[in-house]
Amino acid sequence: MKAAIIGGTGYGSIELIRLIQKHPHLTIGSVVSNSQAGARFSDIYPHLSDIVDQPLESFDADALGENNDIVFLATPSSVSSNLVPSLLNSGVKCIDLSGDFRLRSTEEYESWYKHKPADEKYLQLASYGLSEIYAEKIKTANLIANPGCYPTATTLGLIPILKTNLADETSIIIDAKSGVSGAGRGLSLTAHYSEINENIKAYKLGAHQHIPEIEQVLSDESGSPITVTFTTHLVPMTRGIMCTMYVNLTEEISSKKIIDLYKQFYQDSHFIRVRPEGNIPSTKEVAGSNFCDIGLHVDERTNRLTIISVIDNLVKGAAGQAIQNVNLMNGWDERTGLTDIPMYP
Amino acid sequence: MKAAIIGGTGYGSIELIRLIQKHPHLTIGSVVSNSQAGARFSDIYPHLSDIVDQPLESFDADALGENNDIVFLATPSSVSSNLVPSLLNSGVKCIDLSGDFRLRSTEEYESWYKHKPADEKYLQLASYGLSEIYAEKIKTANLIANPGCYPTATTLGLIPILKTNLADETSIIIDAKSGVSGAGRGLSLTAHYSEINENIKAYKLGAHQHIPEIEQVLSDESGSPITVTFTTHLVPMTRGIMCTMYVNLTEEISSKKIIDLYKQFYQDSHFIRVRPEGNIPSTKEVAGSNFCDIGLHVDERTNRLTIISVIDNLVKGAAGQAIQNVNLMNGWDERTGLTDIPMYP
Amino acid sequence: MKAAIIGGTGYGSIELIRLIQKHPHLTIGSVVSNSQAGARFSDIYPHLSDIVDQPLESFDADALGENNDIVFLATPSSVSSNLVPSLLNSGVKCIDLSGDFRLRSTEEYESWYKHKPADEKYLQLASYGLSEIYAEKIKTANLIANPGCYPTATTLGLIPILKTNLADETSIIIDAKSGVSGAGRGLSLTAHYSEINENIKAYKLGAHQHIPEIEQVLSDESGSPITVTFTTHLVPMTRGIMCTMYVNLTEEISSKKIIDLYKQFYQDSHFIRVRPEGNIPSTKEVAGSNFCDIGLHVDERTNRLTIISVIDNLVKGAAGQAIQNVNLMNGWDERTGLTDIPMYP
Amino acid sequence: MKAAIIGGTGYGSIELIRLIQKHPHLTIGSVVSNSQAGARFSDIYPHLSDIVDQPLESFDADALGENNDIVFLATPSSVSSNLVPSLLNSGVKCIDLSGDFRLRSTEEYESWYKHKPADEKYLQLASYGLSEIYAEKIKTANLIANPGCYPTATTLGLIPILKTNLADETSIIIDAKSGVSGAGRGLSLTAHYSEINENIKAYKLGAHQHIPEIEQVLSDESGSPITVTFTTHLVPMTRGIMCTMYVNLTEEISSKKIIDLYKQFYQDSHFIRVRPEGNIPSTKEVAGSNFCDIGLHVDERTNRLTIISVIDNLVKGAAGQAIQNVNLMNGWDERTGLTDIPMYP
Repeated sequence: MKAAIIGGTGYGSIELIRLIQKHPHLTIGSVVSNSQAGARFSDIYPHLSDIVDQPLESFDADALGENNDIVFLATPSSVSSNLVPSLLNSGVKCIDLSGDFRLRSTEEYESWYKHKPADEKYLQLASYGLSEIYAEKIKTANLIANPGCYPTATTLGLIPILKTNLADETSIIIDAKSGVSGAGRGLSLTAHYSEINENIKAYKLGAHQHIPEIEQVLSDESGSPITVTFTTHLVPMTRGIMCTMYVNLTEEISSKKIIDLYKQFYQDSHFIRVRPEGNIPSTKEVAGSNFCDIGLHVDERTNRLTIISVIDNLVKGAAGQAIQNVNLMNGWDERTGLTDIPMYP
Repeated sequence: MKAAIIGGTGYGSIELIRLIQKHPHLTIGSVVSNSQAGARFSDIYPHLSDIVDQPLESFDADALGENNDIVFLATPSSVSSNLVPSLLNSGVKCIDLSGDFRLRSTEEYESWYKHKPADEKYLQLASYGLSEIYAEKIKTANLIANPGCYPTATTLGLIPILKTNLADETSIIIDAKSGVSGAGRGLSLTAHYSEINENIKAYKLGAHQHIPEIEQVLSDESGSPITVTFTTHLVPMTRGIMCTMYVNLTEEISSKKIIDLYKQFYQDSHFIRVRPEGNIPSTKEVAGSNFCDIGLHVDERTNRLTIISVIDNLVKGAAGQAIQNVNLMNGWDERTGLTDIPMYP
Repeated sequence: MKAAIIGGTGYGSIELIRLIQKHPHLTIGSVVSNSQAGARFSDIYPHLSDIVDQPLESFDADALGENNDIVFLATPSSVSSNLVPSLLNSGVKCIDLSGDFRLRSTEEYESWYKHKPADEKYLQLASYGLSEIYAEKIKTANLIANPGCYPTATTLGLIPILKTNLADETSIIIDAKSGVSGAGRGLSLTAHYSEINENIKAYKLGAHQHIPEIEQVLSDESGSPITVTFTTHLVPMTRGIMCTMYVNLTEEISSKKIIDLYKQFYQDSHFIRVRPEGNIPSTKEVAGSNFCDIGLHVDERTNRLTIISVIDNLVKGAAGQAIQNVNLMNGWDERTGLTDIPMYP
Repeated sequence: MKAAIIGGTGYGSIELIRLIQKHPHLTIGSVVSNSQAGARFSDIYPHLSDIVDQPLESFDADALGENNDIVFLATPSSVSSNLVPSLLNSGVKCIDLSGDFRLRSTEEYESWYKHKPADEKYLQLASYGLSEIYAEKIKTANLIANPGCYPTATTLGLIPILKTNLADETSIIIDAKSGVSGAGRGLSLTAHYSEINENIKAYKLGAHQHIPEIEQVLSDESGSPITVTFTTHLVPMTRGIMCTMYVNLTEEISSKKIIDLYKQFYQDSHFIRVRPEGNIPSTKEVAGSNFCDIGLHVDERTNRLTIISVIDNLVKGAAGQAIQNVNLMNGWDERTGLTDIPMYP
């Protein structure tokens, strides 16, 4: 099966290429970058020398449809909302890694993204691609809104407790830490080496566009509207997201019982590793892999639950989950092509 | 005035030496390290070549008292509680950088530190050296319990709001992030380069010995017993602590008003820089300096206050605050020897 | 085919496990660690949770021989020289990742390693596993002396020019830079985070035990005895080796011609990527992969050739080349299980 | 004495401000940045909050001359050559931190910098500010060409051996490694965090504009024309330069004798610390300080000398040496304001 990638020179695309090359049923078809069409891929990314030497192409929906079965869109926000209609029309299935099809509410989209939202019709077509939670819908979808990196780590960590009546739903605080690759390859002072090395920096307090996405999923899953406090920090590393999450408990319960509850919730989810008591995951323990590892601790002094969820932002937080969704859409084992052990150290 | 340092080969001592050398009224007297007595200092720390070449000495309270006016103890916990009595007896003033004299309750000490506590008599003599808050007591003290790095960043960030009736005191959550130098120079897997580089790691969940210290100060200052949730994370950088703190507000109030309130609270505190609205400090912005910078943000959607407090853990979190306390004890301007601009980038 | 690993808790073993798991013809048999026998692997390395949960075993040559077809020895120097005889006796093939069987001269071994050398008989049995150069001998070997990380990067970069008469063989200087994982998981001050972060450090000047190994290979390949100047530096990163090598040229020749010569020399070597003119590889461009990338530049002002060779020290410099050798020994395509694209960024 | 800074928002300026604030005889006058005139300094660099809050000014030679005694130019190449004439005219002394006045030959300047050179007249006026070597000329100069970072580390390491007849002057190879701050604050892919973290990268092979500067100084000091091979590498750290230099010796001589020779050469140079035998400096051991530390090793097997010279590129490699030159120009002790101990760790 041939997979095209649009937005070909960002880190998301590069990671898709790394993962597609391992996949037994996928090969790389077209790679599209309007800004660098004609350039050889390995000139822009020398690590691909002798592996992916093909030239970058311009966008052409019909040609893409003809030559490919699946299209991954790894474009900045407000781009894929314009490209997807013609692509679906040409007969391919689309996995959009941007935020354009994630929010059902066009008002919310406009208020957080400050762009014109996608057409309602396509928002309704789109399936939110949080693989562990929405596998059934994903299987039959033609358009996937692949989740954001922070929403993936956050919602996978919070949903099990919200499915019980143990959580005070007004108390949710998410303290998120991300490596710098999440900011992409576009130049900016916040991704400038000398500014972020030996530094931690909080950013976009209360204003991150992933907030409505998180709240939409958590509200859907808990059955009642949920508002969260969400703080993002940039830390001096390339890959990895850790979300440290705090929830007040409505009754006394041990760490062990909460862990059992999570283990049961995720018993069929191969990529979710719920850690035993006293064992808290670090980001490096999932680097390069599609795992989301979750550690749990009840602070008995305050009866508050701390949930620590880690992912590789470029894998489970982007390209890996996109492949996992393609596996589901095609009826393949969801692990196909995603069985790598994390790269440690 | 001559200052001796005990525990001479740890990072705390090294930072004391760096700061004492800048100080117009202090010179380095004895440097004591029982384990490496006789060795030349610059052989252990070549960055001190041609600057501090003196040999390390063994502990001798009388000799220390005779040759020095002040003694800094930068020893592991449970060491200074044994050394301080004889030192005070010999006539010097003591600044203890360990946790041995910080907790008034011997039970709390034993339960968190798992060591025998210091003698009650000396616990009562000790003044807690959070310079901005307890300056008056510090001025007349002979024994200073210099605060821990996390408690410094935490309490300076929380005290102003706790002095109002705006805070729900049961809601305090502290998400702390620290550079690796806080773990000292002692070898351990958590400070091993390949384990912590490109990694974030939470540790000691609900079990960090700084919790009772933080709660003691916050309870004292708010006037009612306070229990906090406190999570510590190791991040891949050498210096710096950031505490991201969350407090539910009891009424609606703007970020701007909270900032004004903090600015007023700290109007005479030269080392506390309360940032204007929308300006959140990063750790590098205080590196190498004695500043504690504080950023404030009210999330109007949840009416929750986020406080971000940053320090250099080895300066304001250890050696710098120790010097600041010596300044206070001697009636010098508290800034003496501490006026360095942060080293950026 | 079942592969055992001895020395199971070091970084070399961990990387072997990561690579064996990807290999279509290999599975992990026993993992031996005398010091931690009985412990569960994933307790020591949580990134292996739910993947490799088996207990570590004690060394038992007969049991190993019975249950495995191949044994990788990733032990400190002077260990495998004692274990290999009984292992070979038990019928398995051995790949030794330590230096014990690399030097033909027992005198040289003793003088650089300060240990008793392996028995002459086994030294003669051993094939030096520099896959691209000695493939023919490797194919029929039962005991492989897998090359050191520095010798791999160095010799692959130098051999082609030494095969011509363009090089002044007395002029070879190798300025090597390594990530910290090369120092292993054993605790030491030089691998202590706060000491090596934000730092470059030269070490073992003129005394590194890889010097005789490099000289042995270069002398063999050039046909005359070669002595080199070799300097090693520790740089603040986990993975990667770069060797910057300088050779005086005996006649004027362009960068382009040298590059052509290298491309021809390595035309059948899939893991060697000779870069085009003006394109110099960086270590991240091979991270996680078995590639050795080589950049070449003739400085016309001094008629000196600069060769820059990069590898991932844990892959092509250790576990990856070991797998490549197993592929050769079994008549499989040398790329089997080693086709991963480098992980970038 | 009042010091103005032109080019006010780069890392060089920021470091000048940090050092001037420590200096007993200097205060900051105007800070000029045409591109950001009117902006408050601490808005661009929050670490300067409450310390340097003055607005940035536009360039005005007369006003600068009236209000300041000294002007530091920390501007990109080809800017200061245009500003210096009017500044000198207005009566101030100028310290230029760019390359505009370093090369005596206008042809060389044009060929390496690809810009129009400064006017001959001013090139002749300029004194090259390598403080330890040219102190006498610096004392009476009105215009200082402050040395580049690489030339400082390189020439201080090589001059003593070139002053003897022990060196084969055709054999000099300089393998230089630099932290990323040397690339400045301007955005570029080579300073983009995710590209350089966990990476070493060689750049500008045989084409770095510091080559003619190094060769000019070495030729002057040795008395005969010298051509060097010079390779630069970017390493993942913010500050620090290490130059590893190789020189063939013309006779057999011990490390110890070479070290004695260097110690004698630099006996009156407070900022040069020649290390004892077996003690090789690392960059962190000079971080934040004006020291240049030098380690020396004779490889007896090849009779080649390895010289390792380290500096903080922003201090001894830029702002610190500029202050040292101002000290010399004013007859102050050259250490004035520069006595800080390196910040370790």
